[in-house]
Amino acid sequence: MEGDPPVRLRVFDLNCWAIRYLSKRRQERMRLIGDLLHREDFDLVLLQEVWSEQDYSDLKVKLGGCYPFSHYFRSGVIGSGLCVFSRFPILDTLLYQYSLNGYPYMLQHGDWFCGKSVGLVLAWESASLLTHSSQLHAEYCREKDAYLPHRLVQAWELAQFIRHTSKAADVVLLGGDLNMHPEDVGIRLLRGWTGLQDAFVEATHFEGCEDGCTLVPNNCFTDKSEMLPFPLGIRIDYILYKAMSSYTVKCEELKTTTGAAPGMAVPFSDHEAVMATLHIQREGQAAGTTFGTAELALADVVTEARTEVCVGLQVAQRQRYSSGRMAVLALLLLLLQAAATLGVLVGLDAGQPFPKLSFCLLAFLAIGILLLSTGLHLFHTMEVKMLRSTEEQMQMVLRALQERP
Amino acid sequence: MEGDPPVRLRVFDLNCWAIRYLSKRRQERMRLIGDLLHREDFDLVLLQEVWSEQDYSDLKVKLGGCYPFSHYFRSGVIGSGLCVFSRFPILDTLLYQYSLNGYPYMLQHGDWFCGKSVGLVLAWESASLLTHSSQLHAEYCREKDAYLPHRLVQAWELAQFIRHTSKAADVVLLGGDLNMHPEDVGIRLLRGWTGLQDAFVEATHFEGCEDGCTLVPNNCFTDKSEMLPFPLGIRIDYILYKAMSSYTVKCEELKTTTGAAPGMAVPFSDHEAVMATLHIQREGQAAGTTFGTAELALADVVTEARTEVCVGLQVAQRQRYSSGRMAVLALLLLLLQAAATLGVLVGLDAGQPFPKLSFCLLAFLAIGILLLSTGLHLFHTMEVKMLRSTEEQMQMVLRALQERP
Repeated sequence: MEGDPPVRLRVFDLNCWAIRYLSKRRQERMRLIGDLLHREDFDLVLLQEVWSEQDYSDLKVKLGGCYPFSHYFRSGVIGSGLCVFSRFPILDTLLYQYSLNGYPYMLQHGDWFCGKSVGLVLAWESASLLTHSSQLHAEYCREKDAYLPHRLVQAWELAQFIRHTSKAADVVLLGGDLNMHPEDVGIRLLRGWTGLQDAFVEATHFEGCEDGCTLVPNNCFTDKSEMLPFPLGIRIDYILYKAMSSYTVKCEELKTTTGAAPGMAVPFSDHEAVMATLHIQREGQAAGTTFGTAELALADVVTEARTEVCVGLQVAQRQRYSSGRMAVLALLLLLLQAAATLGVLVGLDAGQPFPKLSFCLLAFLAIGILLLSTGLHLFHTMEVKMLRSTEEQMQMVLRALQERP
Repeated sequence: MEGDPPVRLRVFDLNCWAIRYLSKRRQERMRLIGDLLHREDFDLVLLQEVWSEQDYSDLKVKLGGCYPFSHYFRSGVIGSGLCVFSRFPILDTLLYQYSLNGYPYMLQHGDWFCGKSVGLVLAWESASLLTHSSQLHAEYCREKDAYLPHRLVQAWELAQFIRHTSKAADVVLLGGDLNMHPEDVGIRLLRGWTGLQDAFVEATHFEGCEDGCTLVPNNCFTDKSEMLPFPLGIRIDYILYKAMSSYTVKCEELKTTTGAAPGMAVPFSDHEAVMATLHIQREGQAAGTTFGTAELALADVVTEARTEVCVGLQVAQRQRYSSGRMAVLALLLLLLQAAATLGVLVGLDAGQPFPKLSFCLLAFLAIGILLLSTGLHLFHTMEVKMLRSTEEQMQMVLRALQERP
């Protein structure tokens, strides 16, 4: 690539909000997305929330001509919702499922069932292009964000996964709906620990929603009441990049969609798409990244994230304890009932002290509570393990940062 | 390291069989293992089945002097059981949990609860040493191995994880109880797709159990009846290695323990330990690996593995269908009961057609079956997803292998 003209890479990222039976006007929107991708001819397309494999297959058929390579990442009960379309051959793929992703009993949020993951695609033009696509746990209430520790564990695992897999790549990309505002601790941790740069911040030219927001109040699908504290909207969808080895990457242009395209009745999704034009050039010698220059700031971010993870750990420990105690109480009730039944059977207790039906109902209730609380106890045991493990890893990194001269 | 005398690396690997309350003479054996490690002074120690964190902490205290660096990998409900002790600083760690690992309802086997994983440790002496430690799903019946597709998915994910994380390392190691015989398709897939070499095969000098077996009939803890078809025992614990970049690695010596150490009453575990002495040298230029010379054979192995995964996929699809049908039947029964109750309530059906107690018991039974079969249906849906995903990845690799000139 040295001496060659620089490569221009056009990347498209969109959370498609394509949940079967639930997302409004899904089929119409997926058709519009397909049309846009067909018309615009990007190099790499990263889509999230494509939960239906049929939607992926339809897109694949439609886009076969301009994006001959594609991959759909399967995981969890519903799926990861991630898929990638590429103009370059996809040489290899790998999926890493986050160890924590919400709670199975929060059915109304449903993140747990999705198997949220980061999908890696190794594509090749003249440089090896390692592309990660991901979606982190949603934030349902910013004031009292119960999922913050889980999202931080995910941001940490995402950063670690990128660090470990990208060492031999030339250019590393991450696109996705990270469900974090630009100033949030999770995104600072991710950027600080991987050295990834934010295309919106670095872009020479920007066009689109104000402040690069990707969830905006005047999109007809967004919940207006949730947007009240953010009159301009929020930016939670990102394209991040990093040059490795002897390459440099610059973001020439960043665009977002702004609601419905001209002549169209509906926007593509409840999120706006992010489109980056990157300028990739091979330099004579290894280019220095900005990573390493701000280690003190990084130590602060890791400390902040660790504090939040510790808070989550305490909550998880309390929940583990409560569910364990509930299981023990249910077991005691069952034992008591068994003893009473035995008493009646061996004739110690003459007569019929309990109405049969209520006795049976009580036993079933106790069994139900026992099973449920045991399940919860096991779940929170696992949660405690993963939070503690992340906390320890962060501590190890902090020590290493402090020991560096 | 160039021009320096070669480095001798002593690696120890053992499945410790240290399950709290279940493994025989656990504490005594863990003490013996600690004594051995303290006496022998290895460079890297990879342990599996250390399920109790207390056992790890005790070892850490005991071995702090000779192995100042260590890491315990937490995952799943019970844990991954993996830990690493090192004479070199551990710079970074990462855990990858396999997407399939048996069935939650196979309580007697319990693998599902362990969160089987591969743990990665990046250690550094003068070369960067990427060490993976893992344990795959156990084989409970060789003739009718219901877990073969899951173990193959794990072997594939392990191979993919090693390939993607090891690109910038100098030397790659994998130690663990892989629960596969040397001629099994899973180990051939793992070795073929990563280029890892088997220390037992390559060793200049070998000392220990015949054929390098690590599960032998004359170990007092092994089940003699399971060992009947294998009078010498079986080899399922491995140390595998690969030189990357400009390094060469040779295995000078491989040893296994042979039951109880002299003067000791019990063996260290139901498995024998594997100990390798590796000779690592930096060469002037990049050393060619044997990987790539046998692509035709690799294509055969991938095809064989894919066939087994397809068989597993069909079984999983049948199970998903049966559990789904059972859930629908239970739901119908419940609806029928609800209709009958409603009929009685609105007075369509005068009198009391059902005995109350039996009616309630039937309803609870239906609810129980509905919950259970829905859970199973979701589990098998996930299983189908992961098996299909692996099958597709293997197909992609096969295409790539066939397209190469």
